Amino acid sequence: MKKNNKKVNAAIVIIGNEILSGRTQDVNVVAISQWLNVLGVKLEEVRIIPDIEKKIVKAIREIKKKYKYVFATGGVGPTHDDITSRSIAHAFKSTYGYHKEAYHLLENYYGKKDFNLGRKKMAMMPINAKLILNPTSGAPGFYIGNVFCLPGVPSILKSMLGGLKNEITGGKKILNRSITLRTVESEIASSLRKTQNKYKSVEIGSYPFFRKGKIGVSIVLRSPEKKKIDQCYKQIVSFIKKKNIKIIGS
Amino acid sequence: MKKNNKKVNAAIVIIGNEILSGRTQDVNVVAISQWLNVLGVKLEEVRIIPDIEKKIVKAIREIKKKYKYVFATGGVGPTHDDITSRSIAHAFKSTYGYHKEAYHLLENYYGKKDFNLGRKKMAMMPINAKLILNPTSGAPGFYIGNVFCLPGVPSILKSMLGGLKNEITGGKKILNRSITLRTVESEIASSLRKTQNKYKSVEIGSYPFFRKGKIGVSIVLRSPEKKKIDQCYKQIVSFIKKKNIKIIGS
Repeated sequence: MKKNNKKVNAAIVIIGNEILSGRTQDVNVVAISQWLNVLGVKLEEVRIIPDIEKKIVKAIREIKKKYKYVFATGGVGPTHDDITSRSIAHAFKSTYGYHKEAYHLLENYYGKKDFNLGRKKMAMMPINAKLILNPTSGAPGFYIGNVFCLPGVPSILKSMLGGLKNEITGGKKILNRSITLRTVESEIASSLRKTQNKYKSVEIGSYPFFRKGKIGVSIVLRSPEKKKIDQCYKQIVSFIKKKNIKIIGS
Repeated sequence: MKKNNKKVNAAIVIIGNEILSGRTQDVNVVAISQWLNVLGVKLEEVRIIPDIEKKIVKAIREIKKKYKYVFATGGVGPTHDDITSRSIAHAFKSTYGYHKEAYHLLENYYGKKDFNLGRKKMAMMPINAKLILNPTSGAPGFYIGNVFCLPGVPSILKSMLGGLKNEITGGKKILNRSITLRTVESEIASSLRKTQNKYKSVEIGSYPFFRKGKIGVSIVLRSPEKKKIDQCYKQIVSFIKKKNIKIIGS
């Protein structure tokens, strides 16, 4: 696959024992990735790691050097297992403490009387971080350097992405086009390989499926260049027709 | 969190542009993790990486040194974007070619006449690998060293795990117990922290949720020691009752 001209990429670091233990099904990767596609940012790696400070620090330090944007999710609540903010402060060698703006924001949100220690903890983060506002449940996320720290609860996370858009400078929007066939992969593998070799700037994915007892293959074309996608699509349709394969969706 | 006496851990490497692009929702992490829990193997890391050979080789080399078992999923089909088997061969500096047993198995499965080039490709892997049988769709997975290579299609993957059980030597089964409360995390954070400090061998997770407009918190206890879990559970129930918090599930 040829690299895009502008390499605007991202990685996600999911921090959460509950995902690793199989208790919770992650849905944030799909949400963030689809949001990034629209902004023209390509998600190139995801790591899921446990709630262990030194593992978080190591992963964040490694990943933040490799990608333009990093999204860290989970572990920003008030309980003992929420150690993401502290770990990210350490990863950046920044001071971990009450963030003035976050403190005031949360004090206003809960009211002075109900602003207990647990809630105050949610104002603790790298003190020089910038806030990401939370329209759902008050407690803000933050970003420092190229690392954006968001909560793990999917509905809250999604509601915060909107406010982040202006902080992300994407490249060309990544377009996709797909075609679904009643066939098996081995019937089209050789023609598809030839097409890929001809259209190197288009990422061609082939995905077999088994639904309701029926088999099929979805072919997905991805590229920031609409013209290339359309040419590539045309070539695929042409060899499919020659092979008498039924198109069942596009 | 104190380490278990026997460190029997695992990592998953998901190879697939379709997961990174947000097109496909991964469900294999939950399936493999829950299967590993029963075998007494703790999943400690997941990486999702693209279909790019050098990235696969790098990730596999790095991860196989760090964990007892590694599960690589996706990219083992007949098309041009299926490069996992070749990449794993390279990661192990093993010869990539037709695996005798896999070749015969697939030739029998499809019949000589229909055993085309695409299907033959599925017999290509590290030639010294051991096979993982596939009761669903014929094409076997394989393992080499501590890396187990499985297809990405969830139904096929699941059907192959059963046959793998004898190759995995787990530790003590990881048990869990949970309790669900009508409260917010900040109300219990301080008591929960004290409980965690007392029961260091139990991993206590606290997970807020928002369902049908109602909020709550699930507390999950995980440990291979049933007695410790039960003691820890008892202490949690005791402080919850003192706080007059409603238990809505356990």
